[in-house]
Amino acid sequence: MLVVQKYGGTSVETPEKILSVAQKVSQAYDEGNQIVVVVSAMGKTTNYLIDLLHKVNRDPNPREYDMVVSTGEQISIALLASAMSKMGKQAVSLTGFQAGIDTDSNHARAKLKRVYRGKILSLLDEGKIPVIAGFQGVSPSGDITTLGRGGSDTTAVAIAYALDADVCEIYTDVDGVYAADPRYVENPRHIEKISYDEMIEMAAHGAKVLHLRAVELARRYRVPLIVRHAHIGGRETRIGEVEKMEEPLVRALTVDEGIAKVVLERVLDKPGIAAKIFKKLADYQISLDMIVQSMHKDGRNDVAFTVAKDDLQDTLNAMNEIKDEVEAKAVHYDDTIAKVSIVGVNILGSPEIIYGMFNTIASEDVNIDMISSSNSRVSCIISKSKIGKVADALAERFKLKAL
Amino acid sequence: MLVVQKYGGTSVETPEKILSVAQKVSQAYDEGNQIVVVVSAMGKTTNYLIDLLHKVNRDPNPREYDMVVSTGEQISIALLASAMSKMGKQAVSLTGFQAGIDTDSNHARAKLKRVYRGKILSLLDEGKIPVIAGFQGVSPSGDITTLGRGGSDTTAVAIAYALDADVCEIYTDVDGVYAADPRYVENPRHIEKISYDEMIEMAAHGAKVLHLRAVELARRYRVPLIVRHAHIGGRETRIGEVEKMEEPLVRALTVDEGIAKVVLERVLDKPGIAAKIFKKLADYQISLDMIVQSMHKDGRNDVAFTVAKDDLQDTLNAMNEIKDEVEAKAVHYDDTIAKVSIVGVNILGSPEIIYGMFNTIASEDVNIDMISSSNSRVSCIISKSKIGKVADALAERFKLKAL
Repeated sequence: MLVVQKYGGTSVETPEKILSVAQKVSQAYDEGNQIVVVVSAMGKTTNYLIDLLHKVNRDPNPREYDMVVSTGEQISIALLASAMSKMGKQAVSLTGFQAGIDTDSNHARAKLKRVYRGKILSLLDEGKIPVIAGFQGVSPSGDITTLGRGGSDTTAVAIAYALDADVCEIYTDVDGVYAADPRYVENPRHIEKISYDEMIEMAAHGAKVLHLRAVELARRYRVPLIVRHAHIGGRETRIGEVEKMEEPLVRALTVDEGIAKVVLERVLDKPGIAAKIFKKLADYQISLDMIVQSMHKDGRNDVAFTVAKDDLQDTLNAMNEIKDEVEAKAVHYDDTIAKVSIVGVNILGSPEIIYGMFNTIASEDVNIDMISSSNSRVSCIISKSKIGKVADALAERFKLKAL
Repeated sequence: MLVVQKYGGTSVETPEKILSVAQKVSQAYDEGNQIVVVVSAMGKTTNYLIDLLHKVNRDPNPREYDMVVSTGEQISIALLASAMSKMGKQAVSLTGFQAGIDTDSNHARAKLKRVYRGKILSLLDEGKIPVIAGFQGVSPSGDITTLGRGGSDTTAVAIAYALDADVCEIYTDVDGVYAADPRYVENPRHIEKISYDEMIEMAAHGAKVLHLRAVELARRYRVPLIVRHAHIGGRETRIGEVEKMEEPLVRALTVDEGIAKVVLERVLDKPGIAAKIFKKLADYQISLDMIVQSMHKDGRNDVAFTVAKDDLQDTLNAMNEIKDEVEAKAVHYDDTIAKVSIVGVNILGSPEIIYGMFNTIASEDVNIDMISSSNSRVSCIISKSKIGKVADALAERFKLKAL
């Protein structure tokens, strides 16, 4: 088998853990597999480097930012390759540039354009183990770029696709994907197998185990993913094509507290007004999550939407800039909300499930502020203070706890 | 003027010092110069990285060693470029690879092959300030290499030569070259101007301010050097062509405690025996310093030579391997020696100076163990315990103290 193994920052945060990872890679190699390893920076290295950079410039040029933070992975690949050579394996570390990972020029949040597989394949042909820096690539002008959040997972999936690997294994600090986050739901069920679509909904709505970009890329190119614990054997979660089920089923529940609601009050009800608002948000590169428009008797609308909390200040700035133009009476926000979502294939087509969700929340005496849905997900915005009891009640209702 | 400025590790060891260096570079730029900056890794970064690597493998592959340690300069160039952009300057950091610094494939002690000046010149043409990682380059196979000791100085000189710069300024933690090391001689004279030849002798025989490789390269290509303090203005030392003087003069005195003597006792006096010994040392890549051969009445020779202390163990191993072949009675060593040298243009042609040196040492009641000389230098090996008083007496004798 040709296997891409990705190890995250917590899995390589100390020399001891790097040696333990090297052992794991060696073992997979000795079992007769061809292995390509993708590694993140050790533990808190990236944060340390960013802090250091901020000490000389709070607002550094993104090209220089990438130059600094990319050293984190450069260190971890060389350490892992060295640990593996101690175990008698021929491992060769490769930076994003050396591995042939081409990106665009958007420093600090570059998009992958292409992975040249020549170098990696020639190392594999020689029986070697390429150890590749995640999270980084090279721009058309030869500058070092980084991919932003979820970059290392995305690198691993892109390499697995480029090599037509049999599987892309994501090693992390949990033994797979769970039906709910244990911070909100006690003893959630472990998921053995889940579809790309469901995993995407989970990643987009609060689950942290895999990054949305990586799962989207895996879905697009049908790269089979496995999530495992980096140091403890045992369970795993497979993400891939899942056979259609007879009955729709709630696979998992996610909670997202990282959002805030922004409301434009009593906006003029004229064609083009909504477009103006959303154009402005796009200019600021702010992604919307949910949107609700409610009409008042005076012919004016309240426009409410949710954004990531990190984008709240920018959003308020943007809205205040166009407030007069759209004749809004006021702009206000609420950051005491949270989003709870249930995820499962085709659940929107199942009235019992939708009813079950709303009914459970109502039974807990909690108001639903906003609702949104996709084919595989239904989300409700509720007060953050109620999120624990609502998540637990939904987990009971949909049998998301371990038996 | 086109100026190459090189800043060493102690000059950039903290964010504050990086900002201070940025100020200095900006000022030189504002005075109308084109500036290219070469930077070492911050303070103890390289040692930290090596320690980290040794925690996973005491004997790492040199390619991986270079991959790790080269991150030190990559961080400092990006920090310095960021500090300069804060001051409104357009600075662009370049790794050795990006700057076009080609080396051979001898990882951890690569030799410079060529500097491609295209990238650097095009940045200068755009009014930008290239900030280039010292100490590192790229091998023909595209791997990151490091140059070993003195690498950053050497990078700076090579770039100055490639760009035909007007001067290469070496910023460090002293304000120039002194006629003696203050650890051995109180209040030594500051040197304003010194020839390449003298500086080479000083660097080769104990002076730490500049690295031998860099000065040799500067001499070969006639690159004018200036040594200055990185943070304190004031004095400087210029290294270049120095007009011939009427009288030979002792310019400086150096002390080297980093040597040891190895003796092969009563070696067979046959043609080819010496060649065998030195071939063996060459195989181990050990550089000899002084060599003395003394004949005994039984037709056998004692062969004694000095090597760097770091090479002592390897040297003893090498000598023990050929001890029987050359029929040496014994191999022994002495690491309680030190070398004191006086340096000056043509001093070997001045019997008074030579006599003055030997006479001064004798007046101190100190034995001379070995003597060696070049056109610009005379060195004596004496007991390490006597080095302080001998250095001081020689400094007095040759007027090397400040008035």
